[in-house]
Amino acid sequence: VEADDQSAVLAIASEIHYADLAQAYQDLDEERHPVFLKSIGPELAADMLVELPESMIEEALDHFRPAELKVLFRELSDDDRVDMLQAVGDEARLRYLGLLGPEDEELTRSLLRYEYDTAGGRMTTRFGRLFASMTVKQAIEYLRRDQDNTETLSRIFVVDAKGHLIGRVRLRDLAFNTWDTPIRDIMAEVGSEQRVLATADQEEAANILLKYDLVVLPVIDEFDHLLGIITHDDAMEILQEESTEDFERFGGIAGDQDEATYLNTPTFSHFRRRAGWLVGLAFVSIVSGYVMMRFGSVLSQAFVLSLFLPMVVAAGGNSGGQATTMVIRAMSLNELIQGTGTRVAWKELRTGFLLGLLLGICMALFTAFILPAFSPGLPAGIGYPRLALSVAVALTAQVTSATFLGSLLPFGARAMKLDPAVVSAPAIAAIVDVSGMVIYFSVVRTLLGL
Amino acid sequence: VEADDQSAVLAIASEIHYADLAQAYQDLDEERHPVFLKSIGPELAADMLVELPESMIEEALDHFRPAELKVLFRELSDDDRVDMLQAVGDEARLRYLGLLGPEDEELTRSLLRYEYDTAGGRMTTRFGRLFASMTVKQAIEYLRRDQDNTETLSRIFVVDAKGHLIGRVRLRDLAFNTWDTPIRDIMAEVGSEQRVLATADQEEAANILLKYDLVVLPVIDEFDHLLGIITHDDAMEILQEESTEDFERFGGIAGDQDEATYLNTPTFSHFRRRAGWLVGLAFVSIVSGYVMMRFGSVLSQAFVLSLFLPMVVAAGGNSGGQATTMVIRAMSLNELIQGTGTRVAWKELRTGFLLGLLLGICMALFTAFILPAFSPGLPAGIGYPRLALSVAVALTAQVTSATFLGSLLPFGARAMKLDPAVVSAPAIAAIVDVSGMVIYFSVVRTLLGL
Repeated sequence: VEADDQSAVLAIASEIHYADLAQAYQDLDEERHPVFLKSIGPELAADMLVELPESMIEEALDHFRPAELKVLFRELSDDDRVDMLQAVGDEARLRYLGLLGPEDEELTRSLLRYEYDTAGGRMTTRFGRLFASMTVKQAIEYLRRDQDNTETLSRIFVVDAKGHLIGRVRLRDLAFNTWDTPIRDIMAEVGSEQRVLATADQEEAANILLKYDLVVLPVIDEFDHLLGIITHDDAMEILQEESTEDFERFGGIAGDQDEATYLNTPTFSHFRRRAGWLVGLAFVSIVSGYVMMRFGSVLSQAFVLSLFLPMVVAAGGNSGGQATTMVIRAMSLNELIQGTGTRVAWKELRTGFLLGLLLGICMALFTAFILPAFSPGLPAGIGYPRLALSVAVALTAQVTSATFLGSLLPFGARAMKLDPAVVSAPAIAAIVDVSGMVIYFSVVRTLLGL
Repeated sequence: VEADDQSAVLAIASEIHYADLAQAYQDLDEERHPVFLKSIGPELAADMLVELPESMIEEALDHFRPAELKVLFRELSDDDRVDMLQAVGDEARLRYLGLLGPEDEELTRSLLRYEYDTAGGRMTTRFGRLFASMTVKQAIEYLRRDQDNTETLSRIFVVDAKGHLIGRVRLRDLAFNTWDTPIRDIMAEVGSEQRVLATADQEEAANILLKYDLVVLPVIDEFDHLLGIITHDDAMEILQEESTEDFERFGGIAGDQDEATYLNTPTFSHFRRRAGWLVGLAFVSIVSGYVMMRFGSVLSQAFVLSLFLPMVVAAGGNSGGQATTMVIRAMSLNELIQGTGTRVAWKELRTGFLLGLLLGICMALFTAFILPAFSPGLPAGIGYPRLALSVAVALTAQVTSATFLGSLLPFGARAMKLDPAVVSAPAIAAIVDVSGMVIYFSVVRTLLGL
């Protein structure tokens, strides 16, 4: 691939899978892209482009002449073509639409009406469709003629004369039945929950496919007309994208995952996606600092009190983050439907209390039995047992409240129609840092009388 | 479902999908389980059990008599049966193996040799297999006879006389070709990268399936004998499990995700999975506390210095956590292969420096222009500009080093053959809390001369 020998590149490229080809293209320096694309030609490039991250598509398309682009777009299946046009700028999209044949253009325009992240935006219209009135023989002939226009025949859907979805057959039902059997007699019903509206979120479509172990999910409009299908590989991609998005959001990284690989994303883009949260949370931390400053006199009465402050504060962030992790993931897996908030909160309140108690007891034992060996110097008139009690009480209160809060915030986000994963681990930590400071100083002042 | 009317339960149960049935079962109180299982009978229960979390399987099987269990196990496909036997205790497994017919028992025992989380442990042996020497007519008859024993005919694999995998055909190739065509002539090759060893990790199998958009992935032994297949729905489940595991590990939650839903997991199990990290990290926080205690005299010279301490510490945890998030997710998506560590470290060093600088500048501006309005009281002889400079330097150093460290730790874990996601967000935070304390106090002491 490194050499400039075009025919050698083509020879290798036509041997390997387009997923590997896309990988090779991404690993290449940008100045070699034009030569590479010219070598493989528009047909092979079409398959490869589908596998590229969205951000690289417009640049790649720019290297082709209009005549080549016509070939390239003709090679693509309708859903891939739409995805690609959604990845480029408005001006380029209009230009490319003009290169399609009249039929393709109309189809593409109608698909472009659906947002990228809806079932309609991800569906393909290249699928096997039969009429209930056909016989097996008619059906096989119909499918054979249409063969090149279908992406999958794993499931073939049956419609009535008006195009309403009424059933499905498997290719094996056709292959293993006599030729005069009517389709109506061998088709299976498609349950009302095993279809999805074109306007539904792509994640909903993927989840239905996953839940019912489907190879293919039919996409319908509000009148039950069959519009297209979503296949298992689309669903896998959707689930991967959504997991990545959840993971990154929860880690305090803003913006959508745009399919670009980590190493292909410029440093400045990495910087931009993280800067917002960092700066915002720094200002929240000033509140923690303010509390600490106000209670500074308490700490200066006995430096040993500083020993436990970072622990109490961090234990809140850790336990709150754990609670949020569990709740966000369970929400993503559709386990926490509406109305489960109270059950979750109650469970987390008990879990948090147990965790706080355990941590409190551990640290009380440490304070009462190990700390004295280092004789760190206690405040006047206060013994290790009382210090141990204070630490234990503060930890229990902090961990219980942080766990409770951490479990509730994703529900709050959901109630505000936000993605629960916007409640990131750093955000939880910043919030419970403040409460940790307040709890620790209040407990110490009250129980130790400072 | 709530009523005790068994025939009504059965009537409803046979109407709805087994995934929904499993959901209903899980939502039921435990004492109603026996009645529910008796009502639906072993045939329906078999399908439903497959969808249950592993931890509920043994209890459910206990409610059946041996004769019913025989029916139940006969209903299951081989891979589901193996999964189920892997979910129960050793004693129960032996007892259940004795209930299988001799043929099923042998097959099940041979599949049980593979660990649950390998390709062999997840594969099914119920798939369409043809010999290259057959004609289309022979093939169709062969498949028709074998029809009930195959899970999918989406892809049919072709073997030579010795059982080596040599190609694949689609059912449509059979349906649309003349009956005397030899299979050898219409089969497509199966690339060496589009198969997986039975001993390979399940995640590897799922990733191959995803990368090449396969419906079915053939599983082979080291001599290229075809042993079984992994289907797209297995792959989706595997990817979901692995994402959940990554997410939970990164959130500081120990132990494997066992498919139980959040609400069905008892409070004490939630407690147990989180307690380890919390207690361990609390002891790490004592180190932070120790640093703070040692430098207590610095803080007591001017309480305003406390204002920035939580911020510098938290900014490290936040930026380090962001870096780890990006790296762990990229590793899960197989983007960071061996040897990319240096490139990642260099990228993160620059990203971290930019983030630190931005944060430093923001806070320096705050210190120089907004803070004076609150006249918090500065250390003797020190003006706002010098304080602003100190804060900026400390933040830049802390964020740069934390980002750098956060990006490297997952590589360290991987080098030690651990799952990179064991480097959890709370662990990063605890580590850079310590460095944050040291950096802040060193910078303040040096630049402000305290």
